Amino acid sequence: MTFSFQRLASDGMARRGRVSTAHGTIETPAFMPVGTAATVKAMTNDMVVSTGAEIILGNTYHLMLRPGAERIGKLGGLHRFMRWEKPILTDSGGFQVMSLAARRKLDEEGVTFQSHIDGSRHQLTPERSIGIQHLLDADITMQLDECIRLPASEAEMRRAMELSLRWAERSKRAFVRRDGYGLFGIVQGGTDPVLRGESARGLCGIGFDGYALGGLAVGEPQAEMFETIEATVPHLPEERPRYLMGVGRPSDLVGAVMRGIDMFDCVMPTRSGRTGQAFTPRGTVNLRNARHADDPRPLDETSDCPAARDYSRAYLHHLLKCDEILAAMLLTWNNLAFYQTLMRGMRAAIEDRRLASWAEAFHRREALGDIDAVTG
Amino acid sequence: MTFSFQRLASDGMARRGRVSTAHGTIETPAFMPVGTAATVKAMTNDMVVSTGAEIILGNTYHLMLRPGAERIGKLGGLHRFMRWEKPILTDSGGFQVMSLAARRKLDEEGVTFQSHIDGSRHQLTPERSIGIQHLLDADITMQLDECIRLPASEAEMRRAMELSLRWAERSKRAFVRRDGYGLFGIVQGGTDPVLRGESARGLCGIGFDGYALGGLAVGEPQAEMFETIEATVPHLPEERPRYLMGVGRPSDLVGAVMRGIDMFDCVMPTRSGRTGQAFTPRGTVNLRNARHADDPRPLDETSDCPAARDYSRAYLHHLLKCDEILAAMLLTWNNLAFYQTLMRGMRAAIEDRRLASWAEAFHRREALGDIDAVTG
Repeated sequence: MTFSFQRLASDGMARRGRVSTAHGTIETPAFMPVGTAATVKAMTNDMVVSTGAEIILGNTYHLMLRPGAERIGKLGGLHRFMRWEKPILTDSGGFQVMSLAARRKLDEEGVTFQSHIDGSRHQLTPERSIGIQHLLDADITMQLDECIRLPASEAEMRRAMELSLRWAERSKRAFVRRDGYGLFGIVQGGTDPVLRGESARGLCGIGFDGYALGGLAVGEPQAEMFETIEATVPHLPEERPRYLMGVGRPSDLVGAVMRGIDMFDCVMPTRSGRTGQAFTPRGTVNLRNARHADDPRPLDETSDCPAARDYSRAYLHHLLKCDEILAAMLLTWNNLAFYQTLMRGMRAAIEDRRLASWAEAFHRREALGDIDAVTG
Repeated sequence: MTFSFQRLASDGMARRGRVSTAHGTIETPAFMPVGTAATVKAMTNDMVVSTGAEIILGNTYHLMLRPGAERIGKLGGLHRFMRWEKPILTDSGGFQVMSLAARRKLDEEGVTFQSHIDGSRHQLTPERSIGIQHLLDADITMQLDECIRLPASEAEMRRAMELSLRWAERSKRAFVRRDGYGLFGIVQGGTDPVLRGESARGLCGIGFDGYALGGLAVGEPQAEMFETIEATVPHLPEERPRYLMGVGRPSDLVGAVMRGIDMFDCVMPTRSGRTGQAFTPRGTVNLRNARHADDPRPLDETSDCPAARDYSRAYLHHLLKCDEILAAMLLTWNNLAFYQTLMRGMRAAIEDRRLASWAEAFHRREALGDIDAVTG
């Protein structure tokens, strides 16, 4: 099984594709649930699979600290460790070093930092990141990059983008090619279209199995994110998958797919599930709200997910009020199912070349807001 | 469907039976997982059913406070509320008023108390307890009783036992008979065989669909509990199920079944599951212990529960270290499966009249202790 990307159909800029990997295929556009510490939080793998997810994301930063990359390697890799048999993409660890670790020091070589868990010292270089992801046995490995905070000066964006390009080269050299395993480069350059273009062309010159857009979904307005996608995608090869990292809300996904993105990951459906926020076709619902206490209706009777279809809002509200673990389980399940249904809908719409009208209907439905409260 | 108990086989004092209720049958000896607040903590119903559980227990005290008995009644009862289609037994609320509520005041009429959640005032009388359990639509309703702390004086044990008998009469009068629904009386009397006998005979005079032994599993030695069972069971009718409330450890269940008990409930498998303790045929295993960090072996390869059979101890240890919800899910699942396998084993052994040798083998295996740690 060679790592590959097939384009099956397109509709405007949007593509309907298939990524083939050592652990199976991924229909795109695809959403990857986040399995930070070798578990998609509050889910069994069967529940994740039941939603239609075909690939999950693992976090190198978390796994290298706990339980340790060498340990997972000795135990047969991340798939075997967590018993997830489908593809896994791992990030490089760089983003979370920047957002979570203490006493970070970044230089040409890499980044040294202290664990946020126990203060232990670690170094992450392009070579070490690739080595860890090899130990984890990731189907898709991400290069180490530097992700800066926005807004930033043009000089700062350029410096980080150029460093990321040099790290891309080192990542490519360190990556051990195996059948069915791929390495993705990451386009940086902040919100500057010139820098994004330079970064994309630089990466293409090195040559990767896929191209990611990094440094977005860090608080910038949606319009700015869309502009950056539009400025970047034309510089990326048609025959490689494009991955928008860390994005996002349902409407972000729809807009990004329409601009040529194939893959996504985001903690939103899982994290929201643990705080009582449910995604539905009519927007988000805060199930902690007392309006749901006597409501016998499900979150979404049209869903094929048991969590969305079979349990009353009254019950879900009750579980949340009692801080029951089942609340996190059912809401995460609902949310992941919603995201996968969204992706399935877009895949079908692209095949039929009706993505624009599908997106219009999506926005119209989402704008309706939640069903009216029950009275009485 | 009439509420009934069939004795299918016996072996010494042990009985193999079947309880028939409005929501299905329960093979006995049976263990009932505890679903305190309308959820068996950290489990989906499918996971509970997969272990072989045929009945769960709901807590009247918790449910009357949150979300409220009238609310559950309006939503169609507890089965529908939590989507558990098999039988449910509810306790009377009395035990938890005594252990959890604030500012309790007990008199002949009942007990008034303040909610441990919001300080609101409530009253629980025999009539109100039966009424709540009717609203919940419990297949098996428990009378309200007074459960005192042990050790206690003979006078105190007698007073509480006699009050419980008067409450038993009022409970019986308040209970609305419906096809497939049963009411159980509760034998009290502390550790005094004379009082236990009096209580049992008094309850039989009133007449119940089943008889429970209350006031045990409150810290007394196992031998004392067994003696109390032996002093009580001869006073109970053969043709009614016997339920030992709040018990217990696996060896408690084995000893109690051998002394004629048919039904059990206990938070141990679920609560332990949330703190990292796993039940296995070779005793309990503390998965937080670092000895498991590199252990690729499952908890129990002979189990048919995925949580016991398919995940490495290293993975379970990792999940616990990270406080992942999946740790509670998998360990609770393992523990409930272990308890149900234990009951299945006893049921088969009684049918074959080999319970004594089965129990010997059980104790021998449990005494082995956990498998040796991996070296290297």
